[in-house]
Amino acid sequence: MAYTIYLSGEIHSTWREQIKHGILENQLDIEVLSPITDHDSSDNIGSQILGPEQNDFWKDHKSAKINSLRTNSYLGRSDIVIIKFGDKYKQWNAAFDAGIAAGLGIPTIVMHSPDLTHALKEIDAAALAVTETPEQVIEILKYISQT
Amino acid sequence: MAYTIYLSGEIHSTWREQIKHGILENQLDIEVLSPITDHDSSDNIGSQILGPEQNDFWKDHKSAKINSLRTNSYLGRSDIVIIKFGDKYKQWNAAFDAGIAAGLGIPTIVMHSPDLTHALKEIDAAALAVTETPEQVIEILKYISQT
Amino acid sequence: MAYTIYLSGEIHSTWREQIKHGILENQLDIEVLSPITDHDSSDNIGSQILGPEQNDFWKDHKSAKINSLRTNSYLGRSDIVIIKFGDKYKQWNAAFDAGIAAGLGIPTIVMHSPDLTHALKEIDAAALAVTETPEQVIEILKYISQT
Amino acid sequence: MAYTIYLSGEIHSTWREQIKHGILENQLDIEVLSPITDHDSSDNIGSQILGPEQNDFWKDHKSAKINSLRTNSYLGRSDIVIIKFGDKYKQWNAAFDAGIAAGLGIPTIVMHSPDLTHALKEIDAAALAVTETPEQVIEILKYISQT
Amino acid sequence: MAYTIYLSGEIHSTWREQIKHGILENQLDIEVLSPITDHDSSDNIGSQILGPEQNDFWKDHKSAKINSLRTNSYLGRSDIVIIKFGDKYKQWNAAFDAGIAAGLGIPTIVMHSPDLTHALKEIDAAALAVTETPEQVIEILKYISQT
Amino acid sequence: MAYTIYLSGEIHSTWREQIKHGILENQLDIEVLSPITDHDSSDNIGSQILGPEQNDFWKDHKSAKINSLRTNSYLGRSDIVIIKFGDKYKQWNAAFDAGIAAGLGIPTIVMHSPDLTHALKEIDAAALAVTETPEQVIEILKYISQT
Amino acid sequence: MAYTIYLSGEIHSTWREQIKHGILENQLDIEVLSPITDHDSSDNIGSQILGPEQNDFWKDHKSAKINSLRTNSYLGRSDIVIIKFGDKYKQWNAAFDAGIAAGLGIPTIVMHSPDLTHALKEIDAAALAVTETPEQVIEILKYISQT
Amino acid sequence: MAYTIYLSGEIHSTWREQIKHGILENQLDIEVLSPITDHDSSDNIGSQILGPEQNDFWKDHKSAKINSLRTNSYLGRSDIVIIKFGDKYKQWNAAFDAGIAAGLGIPTIVMHSPDLTHALKEIDAAALAVTETPEQVIEILKYISQT
Repeated sequence: MAYTIYLSGEIHSTWREQIKHGILENQLDIEVLSPITDHDSSDNIGSQILGPEQNDFWKDHKSAKINSLRTNSYLGRSDIVIIKFGDKYKQWNAAFDAGIAAGLGIPTIVMHSPDLTHALKEIDAAALAVTETPEQVIEILKYISQT
Repeated sequence: MAYTIYLSGEIHSTWREQIKHGILENQLDIEVLSPITDHDSSDNIGSQILGPEQNDFWKDHKSAKINSLRTNSYLGRSDIVIIKFGDKYKQWNAAFDAGIAAGLGIPTIVMHSPDLTHALKEIDAAALAVTETPEQVIEILKYISQT
Repeated sequence: MAYTIYLSGEIHSTWREQIKHGILENQLDIEVLSPITDHDSSDNIGSQILGPEQNDFWKDHKSAKINSLRTNSYLGRSDIVIIKFGDKYKQWNAAFDAGIAAGLGIPTIVMHSPDLTHALKEIDAAALAVTETPEQVIEILKYISQT
Repeated sequence: MAYTIYLSGEIHSTWREQIKHGILENQLDIEVLSPITDHDSSDNIGSQILGPEQNDFWKDHKSAKINSLRTNSYLGRSDIVIIKFGDKYKQWNAAFDAGIAAGLGIPTIVMHSPDLTHALKEIDAAALAVTETPEQVIEILKYISQT
Repeated sequence: MAYTIYLSGEIHSTWREQIKHGILENQLDIEVLSPITDHDSSDNIGSQILGPEQNDFWKDHKSAKINSLRTNSYLGRSDIVIIKFGDKYKQWNAAFDAGIAAGLGIPTIVMHSPDLTHALKEIDAAALAVTETPEQVIEILKYISQT
Repeated sequence: MAYTIYLSGEIHSTWREQIKHGILENQLDIEVLSPITDHDSSDNIGSQILGPEQNDFWKDHKSAKINSLRTNSYLGRSDIVIIKFGDKYKQWNAAFDAGIAAGLGIPTIVMHSPDLTHALKEIDAAALAVTETPEQVIEILKYISQT
Repeated sequence: MAYTIYLSGEIHSTWREQIKHGILENQLDIEVLSPITDHDSSDNIGSQILGPEQNDFWKDHKSAKINSLRTNSYLGRSDIVIIKFGDKYKQWNAAFDAGIAAGLGIPTIVMHSPDLTHALKEIDAAALAVTETPEQVIEILKYISQT
Repeated sequence: MAYTIYLSGEIHSTWREQIKHGILENQLDIEVLSPITDHDSSDNIGSQILGPEQNDFWKDHKSAKINSLRTNSYLGRSDIVIIKFGDKYKQWNAAFDAGIAAGLGIPTIVMHSPDLTHALKEIDAAALAVTETPEQVIEILKYISQT
């Protein structure tokens, strides 16, 4: 593969599908990795496999660790990490992933609407491209994939 | 110094001063590093030194990069990164710092109120201690500093 | 392969076969690596190839080093190291492997019965999942392998 | 300092004090780091600072993580890690520390009685010296500290 | 592939094509990676995808960063970086690439006419071969590719 | 020291002295490292110590390598590398140093006049600040050195 | 491939062919890499491609660097480096390769006759196996390749 | 200290003393590290501390490992490794040290008489200076230590 990319962040819109579709449509030589995006599944996987917890902190703890088996492994083998911030929720895990990428020296492309610019300035400043739409990401991937 | 610690995150309460006070009071052999916590100064430093920008994105960009000269250097030389999440604002830069620490393999202590547990589960799961108060952080620092 | 896993630890039960079977049955895209699990062979390989030793220390030494040619190479190329602690024997080599994984920054899944919890607390604390049965490990591998 | 050493393992004999005494007596330019060796304190520190747990697994978990803030930081900055295995208990954390040192590329000196040779063969094989007494460790430290 | 090579530097002659032709002709097992060598395209890609900028500094900035998504990824996965300096232009990006390779510990082959020797002495001194023509590079690649 | 900085690049103006003066004047806790800036000395040191060469290539080669004993050691231990590009000469070694810093993950501040913007776009894009004057550099150093 | 091995050292006997034959015969899943073993070719390649030198030092210099393009690349991607010391010549490059492997953390197998034991004690001490014959190396490779 | 240097290799002449004297005389800010240069002591230290061995191989083995506790630690913390090859003996440990330095990315200065040029060509090619006398080394150290 020319590039392996990891799609981190927002799970309530179809941006991952759009990027995958753009890659297919343009026949780009790019492998796409993603976290588990089923919200309930990713919240409950710890209790479900390893047994219930009375304390919600440990319930979250066990699930988050199992999810990180996948996310950290996938993120760490990527050439580029693409992170989308949406309008809702705290999305601290998206910012956390951006930081892990920075700590590992893996370049990032960030996607968010312009009204989040000030709140995301540190993350944007560390990124190699700040985009607003999946179309822009696809254009970048097309450009850097030219042979 | 026995330890160098970096205090990342919330800038609207006195938690940094409390931890510094606890370190002094207990005569702990700990060096404390912090970002610039003056909000206006850290927002405007780019334009102020390097010239104004018409576009707020680039204004933020220049400031964020100058701030990262300090924050990344300080964070990267720390033995432990302590990150506080407050009640207000997005605080994506705090989560970003937690991620950088994780990517660099530097252990973290997180501080936040229990109602943020679910939103911070990935960051908590990667931390070596999840605390609620500066007093707890001081107790940990006292414990690990015993001679 | 989506993941490469290394199965370290106990050699007196069929847990490795159960995990391999689960991977096959569920058609998971996972490569499985293991140490030599024939006890006599791994104990005697040094003397057998390189000549006998009068002193048992050096006999063990030569065998352990030849085994580490395989174990360290396999462990070091894995995405996840799974370590089982059984009821018998010291099993220091299992704990040693868990430490090597930690030192290399490779995530671990630990498997042991609940009565070993206190003795294994440092190793459990560094793991991303603490399991009791091969079935739980297979469930985790299924979950993180979803496409 | 010429060397920084970390003393890992057994906490039920006076071997650490003997080594420290030997260093002082011979005026060696060596900094000595150690874990918290008070057993009760290290077992309970998690609950004590961060609150009680109903489940012993999490009680151990919280304590082990706080202890690792110290042990991993100290171990990671050492030039040599010295690990003693005693006659009693599982001592998996000693073997775990030996593994972390191996994973980080930090050389080790192991100390144990000859009857543990076979069980410790992997750890001995990775060590640069296998000793039986604190006196031998002191002799090594004297030898490598000559000016 | 026996080797992956990255061809950095001058874009106004056919040296890349000559090297690729030599590799094909000699059936060498070498993968060739290159930057985007269309000058206008690489200058304008930032504005084109991410929107126009009034200030040329930011226009250049956005383009340079998108280009670095490709160049740094390709350079970083290469076994050998080959850098050609031509007669015209500043070509600081070629020298910058040579430095990145040096910083990453990737060996370089430099190509330039003898009259640039003094100005390029630091870069030549860090290279494993200093050549003048694509034919020489092909000869080296043939030599090191022998089976 | 709060920071160690390395001053790379142009040797025909007094910018290094101005920065050192600003650091002294403002009592900043910053260690300043520099290459040998005596042009003749740095050109001839190889032949002078190690014997003459008939071929200028090898004369340059020997000098460049001796200089790199200092420059790479100093650059590699710096927290920030500051690189000035002047109006004259190729200055490929300045761009080379910027690349080494990038390859090592050390942040850079670049200084040059605006007319070099297009030619330096890759180097500027990788920098955390692009300045025009020593005064601006001093302001940045003052800002990030606040206690 | 299960393993990639690099065969360094002596070029005046058929040990490489014997190991390759043993790998083929036993159908081991092992990739074998070697330096150029044609003595004249490896001595003259620098002058031959890059032009003659009056001074033998530079003639050797240019050849050695071109050879290192292959040897360091091959050695660096190996799982195990096997180094044979023969009876004749200084063979400093074999010891140099053993050191590079040690510096990179790649395990080694050494092969030499017993009368060289004292002179090679540092290199033997860092190896995971010290052998005398290609047959022993093949036995080790067979052992660690079991499925 | 401006630099830390490690003096490896030949132990039968006074070259280390000459370099130390030159550093003192010129008041250079350089820390000098060396191996144990007492031949008998370094050969017998293993048996002496850890007990006798019937087999000379293991006697050498134990001594070599104890010596490496010092040499690898000192070499690894050096900015520059200086290696002298003499006329007598195999001196494979000197070549081994040169390789370790290369593997760790630490620059080297080599010292030897011209008649060893061909045999040492790989080691010379990786060095930043090839000298013949301690005086030349001192001149280099003076040059790179200028303030």
